[in-house]
Amino acid sequence: MKIAVYPGSFDPVTLGHVDIATRAAALCDRLIVGVYEAPPKNLLFSTQERVELMRQAVSHLPNVEVTAYSELTMDFIRRMGSRAYVRGLRMNSDFEREFEMALMNKVFASDIELLCLMCSQEYQFLSSSLLKEAAALGADVSRLVPDAVAQALKKKFAARRRA
Amino acid sequence: MKIAVYPGSFDPVTLGHVDIATRAAALCDRLIVGVYEAPPKNLLFSTQERVELMRQAVSHLPNVEVTAYSELTMDFIRRMGSRAYVRGLRMNSDFEREFEMALMNKVFASDIELLCLMCSQEYQFLSSSLLKEAAALGADVSRLVPDAVAQALKKKFAARRRA
Amino acid sequence: MKIAVYPGSFDPVTLGHVDIATRAAALCDRLIVGVYEAPPKNLLFSTQERVELMRQAVSHLPNVEVTAYSELTMDFIRRMGSRAYVRGLRMNSDFEREFEMALMNKVFASDIELLCLMCSQEYQFLSSSLLKEAAALGADVSRLVPDAVAQALKKKFAARRRA
Amino acid sequence: MKIAVYPGSFDPVTLGHVDIATRAAALCDRLIVGVYEAPPKNLLFSTQERVELMRQAVSHLPNVEVTAYSELTMDFIRRMGSRAYVRGLRMNSDFEREFEMALMNKVFASDIELLCLMCSQEYQFLSSSLLKEAAALGADVSRLVPDAVAQALKKKFAARRRA
Amino acid sequence: MKIAVYPGSFDPVTLGHVDIATRAAALCDRLIVGVYEAPPKNLLFSTQERVELMRQAVSHLPNVEVTAYSELTMDFIRRMGSRAYVRGLRMNSDFEREFEMALMNKVFASDIELLCLMCSQEYQFLSSSLLKEAAALGADVSRLVPDAVAQALKKKFAARRRA
Amino acid sequence: MKIAVYPGSFDPVTLGHVDIATRAAALCDRLIVGVYEAPPKNLLFSTQERVELMRQAVSHLPNVEVTAYSELTMDFIRRMGSRAYVRGLRMNSDFEREFEMALMNKVFASDIELLCLMCSQEYQFLSSSLLKEAAALGADVSRLVPDAVAQALKKKFAARRRA
Repeated sequence: MKIAVYPGSFDPVTLGHVDIATRAAALCDRLIVGVYEAPPKNLLFSTQERVELMRQAVSHLPNVEVTAYSELTMDFIRRMGSRAYVRGLRMNSDFEREFEMALMNKVFASDIELLCLMCSQEYQFLSSSLLKEAAALGADVSRLVPDAVAQALKKKFAARRRA
Repeated sequence: MKIAVYPGSFDPVTLGHVDIATRAAALCDRLIVGVYEAPPKNLLFSTQERVELMRQAVSHLPNVEVTAYSELTMDFIRRMGSRAYVRGLRMNSDFEREFEMALMNKVFASDIELLCLMCSQEYQFLSSSLLKEAAALGADVSRLVPDAVAQALKKKFAARRRA
Repeated sequence: MKIAVYPGSFDPVTLGHVDIATRAAALCDRLIVGVYEAPPKNLLFSTQERVELMRQAVSHLPNVEVTAYSELTMDFIRRMGSRAYVRGLRMNSDFEREFEMALMNKVFASDIELLCLMCSQEYQFLSSSLLKEAAALGADVSRLVPDAVAQALKKKFAARRRA
Repeated sequence: MKIAVYPGSFDPVTLGHVDIATRAAALCDRLIVGVYEAPPKNLLFSTQERVELMRQAVSHLPNVEVTAYSELTMDFIRRMGSRAYVRGLRMNSDFEREFEMALMNKVFASDIELLCLMCSQEYQFLSSSLLKEAAALGADVSRLVPDAVAQALKKKFAARRRA
Repeated sequence: MKIAVYPGSFDPVTLGHVDIATRAAALCDRLIVGVYEAPPKNLLFSTQERVELMRQAVSHLPNVEVTAYSELTMDFIRRMGSRAYVRGLRMNSDFEREFEMALMNKVFASDIELLCLMCSQEYQFLSSSLLKEAAALGADVSRLVPDAVAQALKKKFAARRRA
Repeated sequence: MKIAVYPGSFDPVTLGHVDIATRAAALCDRLIVGVYEAPPKNLLFSTQERVELMRQAVSHLPNVEVTAYSELTMDFIRRMGSRAYVRGLRMNSDFEREFEMALMNKVFASDIELLCLMCSQEYQFLSSSLLKEAAALGADVSRLVPDAVAQALKKKFAARRRA
C-alpha cells in the first residue's frame, strides 16, 4: 500500500486512535488521518482543535499527515489518491453500525478497500463518547489520552463550569 | 391472513421496505402500510411526503394501501381491523431494540401477532438513517431507493445547501 | 397462506415449539410440522419418538400434521406443496446461525419465504439442548414441556442410569 | 457486604428496578439507591420527582435509602462509604454499552466492584425509554410500574396534551 | 452473604478464574468453588486433577474451599447451604448461552440468586478452550494460568506427543 | 507489506475465501495461504485435498502460494518471514470467537498484526460448515464455490451414499 486513509471524528483523539494510527503507518508508505468536519453528533472540540490535537498525537510518526475533510468519506479517500481506508476494530456496540456503513460504502465505491486493524486489549473498551462523559464529571482520564488532550479536556470543562 | 399492517416511519422508503411490502402483500388479502407520524427521532420528510413517496413506491401492488397514523401502533392495527403486523428482519444493530419493543407490545396487546419477514440479502444492510447521511453528502443512492425518492432526496438537500 | 411448513429437529418438542405451532396454525389453512431426521448433532430421541411426541403435543390443533423428512429443508417444503416456512424467533445465541442458514437457503430456493414468529416471553430462553442437560441431571422440567415429553424424558434418563 | 450502591437515572422507576433493588437489599446490610441528576439524555421527570417515586417504590424495604447525586458514579460510591455497586442484567441492546462503561470505570476506580444481578424473566425486556414512548401514546403501563408511577405518567402526559 | 458458590468445569483453572474467585471471596464469609464432574464437553483433565489444580490456585484465599459435584448445579448450591452463585462476566460469545442457562435455572430454583462479577480487562478474552488449543500446539501460556497449571499442561501434551 | 499470510482450514475453499485472497493479494508483494492441518473440528477433505483445491482456486493470482502447516498459527507466520495475517470479516456468529482468538494470539505474539478485510456482501453469510451441510443433502452449491470444489463435493457425497 502506498497511501492509506484513517478517517474519523476524533473528538478528541484517544490513545486507542494513536495505537491504530501507529499500526496503520507501519503498513503503508503514507498515512493520511482524515478528521471529519461534520459527523451527525454533538462535538466537544472544533474541527481546528481536533486536527491540532491529532497532529500533536502523531507527530512522532514521520509518514503520517492530518487533514480535515467534509465530503463523503469515499470521495475524500479518492481525492487523497488512495484506495484503502483503515478502521480500528473494537469489541463494542458500535461494531454493527460500522459494518453496516462499510457495506453501504461498498455500494458507492466498490473499488475502495476497508482494512480493520485490532487495537491493543487495553484500549478495546475506550470510546471518545464515554471518555467525554467521564471527563465532564472530573474523572482523571490521563491514562487514556495523549497529554495535550488531557489538558484540553480540563480547560474545556473548567470553562464550562465557570460559564 | 385477511388484513396485515406494515408499520414504520419510512423516512424515506427504501428498496428494502418495498421488498418487505411486496413479500407481505403476497401473504395476505390486504396490506396496510402505516406511516407513523411522530417517531422519537428527527425526520427529514413530512408525514405527507412520506405517505406520498410510499404510495408511489407500492403503486404496482394492487392490494396495498398507505395511511398515516399517530396512536400506539397496536391501537392502529386494531383500528384497521387487523390482528397481525409485519416487520423486516435485518441483520443489524437495531434488531435487539425491535425485539424489546415487540415484547413490550405483547404486554399491551397479547392478541396481536408479529410476523418477521427476511428482506433480500442485497438490502440487509440498508437503513434509512445511513442512507440520509450519505445522501446529505452527495452520494448517489439511486440503486437503493425508488426513483421518486432519489429525486426527493436530491431536491431536499439542494434546498438545504442553498439555505 | 394455504400451506406452511414448520421444520425442526424437535428433540424433544417443548412448550415453546407448541406455542409457535399454535400461532402458525392460526395464520394458514394447513400447517405441516416437519421433523428433520438427521440434524448434525447428537439426538436423544429417535425420529419415530420425536414425531410421536410432536403429534401428541399438537393433537388439539385440527389443521396441523406432523411428518418426518430427510432431504434439504427447501426441497421438503416444495414437496409439501408449500412456499413458506415458519421459525420461532428467540432472543438467543442461535439467532445468527439461523439467519445465516436462512440467507443460504435463499440461494437454493429464492421462491420460498421465511416467516419468523415471536414466541411468548416465558419461552424466550427455552432450548431443547439446555432442557436435556437439565433433565439428564434430574431437574423437574414439567413446566417447560408437554406432559408426554416430561414422562418420556424421565423414562429415557432412568434407563440410562440403570445402564 | 456492608453497604452497596444501586445507581441509575430511574426516569421513572419500573418494576424491573424494584426487582433488582429487592434482590440487592437481601445481599447487603444497607443499600443506597443513587438517582443520577444529569444523565446525558432527555429526562421526563425532575430529580426530585425521580427520587420521590423511587422512595415510594422501595418503602417496604427497611434497609434501602434513596438519594440523588451529581458527581462521577465512582466518586459517589466512595462518598457513601461503599466499595460495590449493583446493576441489573438484562438481555438487551444496552448491555455492551454498560460493559464498556464498567471497564472504563475500572480505570478510574479499580478498588470498586460491580455486581450484576439478573432481574426476573418478565422484566427482561422492560426499559424506561420504551415505557415512556408507550405511555406518551396512551398505553396502559400499569403492569410494568409501581402504582404511583402509573399515576405520575398519566398526569405528566395529560398535562402535555393540554399544553 | 454468608456462603456463596462459584461453579464451573475449570478445565483447567486460568488466572481469569482466580481473579473471579478472589473478588467473590471478598464479598462473602465462605466461598465454595464447585468443580462440575461431567459437563457436556470433552475434558482434558480428570475431576481429581481439576480439583487439585484449583485448590493450589486459591490456596492463598483463607475462606475458599474446593469440591467436586455431579448433580444439578442448583441442587449443589442448596446442598452447600447457600442461596447464591457467582459467575465471571466476560465479553464473549458464551454470554448468551450463560444467560439462557441462568434463566432456565430460575425455573428450577427461583430462590437462588446469580451474581455476576466482572473479571479484569486483561482476562476478558481468556477462555479455557482457546487456552487448551494453543497449549496443545506448544504455545507458552504461562502468563494466563497459575504456575502449576502451566506445568500440568506441558506434561499432559508431552505425554500425548509421545503416545 | 512484503509478505502476508492468510490462514484457515478451508474445508473446502468457498468463493468468499477466494474473494478475501484476491483482496489481500492486491495489498502485499506475496500472499501465503496457510491451510491448517488439524483444526479442532471434523474435516470433510484431507489436508492434501484442501491444499489442492485452494491452489486451483487461486491459480489466477500470480503472487499467491498455498502451503499446509501444523504448528501454532503465529509460529507459522513467523516461519514464513511475515509479520501480518489476514482474516475475512463476516457478519456472523463466529466473529466473537475469532476476536477472542486474535486477542489471545496477541499474548503469544505481540509483534504480529491482524488485518481484517471485508468480503463482498454476497458472501457475507457463506460459511464452509453450512455449505457442507447443504451439499450433503444434495443442494446445488455451484454458485458459492469454485467449479473444482463443486465437483469434489459431489464426488465426496456420492461416495458416502454408496458406502
